[in-house]
Amino acid sequence: MFDNKGPHTPLSDLGEFGLIQHLTGHLSPRRPSTIKGIGDDAAILDFTGYHTLISTDILMEGVHFDLAYTPLKHLGYKAVMVNLSDIYAMNGEATQITTSIAVSNRFPVEALEELYMGIEQAAQNYNVDLVGGDTSTSRTGLVISITVLGKAKPEQIVQRSGAQPNDLIVVTGDLGGAYMGLRVLERENEVFKVNPNLQPDLEPYSYIVERQLKPEARGDIPPLFNQLKLVPTAMIDISDGLSSELLHLSENAQVGMSVYEEKLPLDPAVISVCEEFNLDSTTVLLNGGEDYELLFTLSQKDYPKIKGNPHFSIIGHVTAKEEGNHLITRTGEKIELIARGWNGLKKE
Amino acid sequence: MFDNKGPHTPLSDLGEFGLIQHLTGHLSPRRPSTIKGIGDDAAILDFTGYHTLISTDILMEGVHFDLAYTPLKHLGYKAVMVNLSDIYAMNGEATQITTSIAVSNRFPVEALEELYMGIEQAAQNYNVDLVGGDTSTSRTGLVISITVLGKAKPEQIVQRSGAQPNDLIVVTGDLGGAYMGLRVLERENEVFKVNPNLQPDLEPYSYIVERQLKPEARGDIPPLFNQLKLVPTAMIDISDGLSSELLHLSENAQVGMSVYEEKLPLDPAVISVCEEFNLDSTTVLLNGGEDYELLFTLSQKDYPKIKGNPHFSIIGHVTAKEEGNHLITRTGEKIELIARGWNGLKKE
Repeated sequence: MFDNKGPHTPLSDLGEFGLIQHLTGHLSPRRPSTIKGIGDDAAILDFTGYHTLISTDILMEGVHFDLAYTPLKHLGYKAVMVNLSDIYAMNGEATQITTSIAVSNRFPVEALEELYMGIEQAAQNYNVDLVGGDTSTSRTGLVISITVLGKAKPEQIVQRSGAQPNDLIVVTGDLGGAYMGLRVLERENEVFKVNPNLQPDLEPYSYIVERQLKPEARGDIPPLFNQLKLVPTAMIDISDGLSSELLHLSENAQVGMSVYEEKLPLDPAVISVCEEFNLDSTTVLLNGGEDYELLFTLSQKDYPKIKGNPHFSIIGHVTAKEEGNHLITRTGEKIELIARGWNGLKKE
Repeated sequence: MFDNKGPHTPLSDLGEFGLIQHLTGHLSPRRPSTIKGIGDDAAILDFTGYHTLISTDILMEGVHFDLAYTPLKHLGYKAVMVNLSDIYAMNGEATQITTSIAVSNRFPVEALEELYMGIEQAAQNYNVDLVGGDTSTSRTGLVISITVLGKAKPEQIVQRSGAQPNDLIVVTGDLGGAYMGLRVLERENEVFKVNPNLQPDLEPYSYIVERQLKPEARGDIPPLFNQLKLVPTAMIDISDGLSSELLHLSENAQVGMSVYEEKLPLDPAVISVCEEFNLDSTTVLLNGGEDYELLFTLSQKDYPKIKGNPHFSIIGHVTAKEEGNHLITRTGEKIELIARGWNGLKKE
C-alpha cells in the first residue's frame, strides 16, 4: 500500500549506488560494537567478550505480505521485528541488521523511502544499527531479506533443546491476535474490491490489526530475565503458531509437552473477533502465527521469580517423551498437539 | 538450467522444515568459531580476539542470472563467491554464511539439491560454515540472498578509504573474462533458441565461460598479504568493473587515479574473443564486471614485497584529487575514467 500523493521518482533516476546513498546515507551507528557500518565491502563489528548470534529471514510479496492492505512503512517495521525476534528467542541482545531489497520498476523511490522509514523506525526503537545491505531490481514483486546480528554472554544463551521433564511451559503476552488481524484485513480487502467507495472501519479491530501489521518483538524479555536472574532451559519465538513451536521444543529435547486450554492467554479482542468469524479461539491461538511472542521452559525452582508477573502465562509443563504432546481441554479431554501451523489454518 | 532426468519431487512433499532438514541436515561445522549452526532461532558464533565482518548480496533470476544457460550447481557456487569476495576485499577471512532461498513451485526438490550442492561445494572449498537460512515460496522466479560473516585482526582490516597520493594501484589476476563469457553464453543461447538441435561447442571458450559461471573469489590473497607482511592502504573487490571500483577508491579517499592501458591484465582468451565480437578489449576490461578479483593500493615502500609476484599487476598510481581519474592509453592519450559499469556495457 503506497498512497503517497507527492512526487513519484523513478528508481532509474538514482541508480543503485545513488539509491543506497539516498536511503541510508543519513544513518550513523548507535552502538559501540559497530566499528563501521554501510559504505565498504563489509561492515566491521566488535563483539569482544560475547558470543555472536546471527539469523536471517526472507519476506516475499504475495507469500508473506499483500501490498493491498500492508502499508510499506509497517512492512519495513515488521520485517525487522521478524528477525529481531529470533535473537531475543536466544536470550540475546540484537545489535545490527543488514537489509537486501529487490523491487520492480513499478515502485517509485518514494515507496522505498517509506519502506526504509519503517526499517529505520524499528532500528531506532530497538537500538540496532543498519550496517549493510544490497538493493536490486526484481522482475516482479518486492523481496525483503534481512539478516540480524546479536550478542549474548555464553552462559545466558538459551537454545531450543534444553527442556527437562517437570519444567514449566511459559509464554509471553497473548496469542492469536496477529492471525485474526489478517483475517479482518483480508475480509475488508474483499469488500473494498467489490465496492471501492466503501471505506473500511478498522477502528473496532485496532488491537488485532496492529498485531498483524506492526508487531513488536519481545526485546524487553532478555533484560527482564537478566534482572530476575533467570535463564530459561529452552526458548523459541512464536512465528508459526504455538502448537508448531511446542513441537519444536519437544522434539529438540526429546520430551513431551502438556498444556492446559484454560491457561492459554487470549486477549478479549481476539475472543470477540473469533466469535464474529465463527472460529474456535483455542484453535486460532494454537495455530495462528506471527505473534512474535516468546515460548520458554523453566525449572520449577525458578517459579517464584516469575510468579504474578503480568508478562508471563504459565500454560503447562514438560513431561517424559512417552507421554507425548497434548492439550488438556477445559473439560479434561486430552487432545494430541499437531503442527497444523499457519498454512493448515488458512486452508480451513 | 536443470537437466536432471531423475525423479522430480514437488517441494510441497517436504514442507518448509522438512526441506531445510533435507537440504542442510547433513552439514556439520568445520570452524571452531561456529558454536552452533543450523537448527535454532539463531546460530551462535565466537569471534574472540577478532573484529567481525558482515556483508550481504541478493541474486535475482532474470536480473543477475539466466537459468537458460546457468547450471544450478554453478549458480549456488557463484552466489557464495560473490559474498566471500566482499570479506576478502576487507583483508578478512570468511568464516560463515547464511542462505535465504525463495523458489516457485516449478522447481522440484532435486533442483534445490543441485543449488545447495553448489553452495556446499563452495563452503567446503573455502572452509566456511553454512550456519543458517530461510526457504520460502516465490510467486515467480528464484531468489538467492546470502549473508557472509568473516573475521580479521583489527590492524589487518583494509577499508576503501585509505588510498594516498603516490600509492601504487594493483589488481589480482586478469579482467574482462567473466563479461566475455556472458556474451558467449548469450550468443549460444540465441542460436539454441533458433535451432534447438544445434549443440553449442563451448570448448574454445572454456576459460571465459568458467570465469562467468563459476568464478573463484580471491581467498588466497589475505593470507598471502599476511605472509608478505603487507597491509594495503585501500582495497575493494571488482564486481561492477575496474573503472567503477577505481572511482569508488578515489572518491572514498579524495584522491585521483592514473592507470596505464599497457599495464592492464588481459588473458589471451579474452583478447581473442573480443576480436571475434569486434569489441575493444580495454573497454571490456574497464567496464565488464563479475571477475571478483581484488583492486588495492599500497605504499611505494612496499613495492619490493610484491615485485615479480605473478598474482599481481601494478596498473598505475594514486595522484592528488585535482588530477582526476584517468586511463593513459598506449599512445599516451589521457582519457577520463567514467563509471559505465556493467549496465553501460550491456546497452552498447
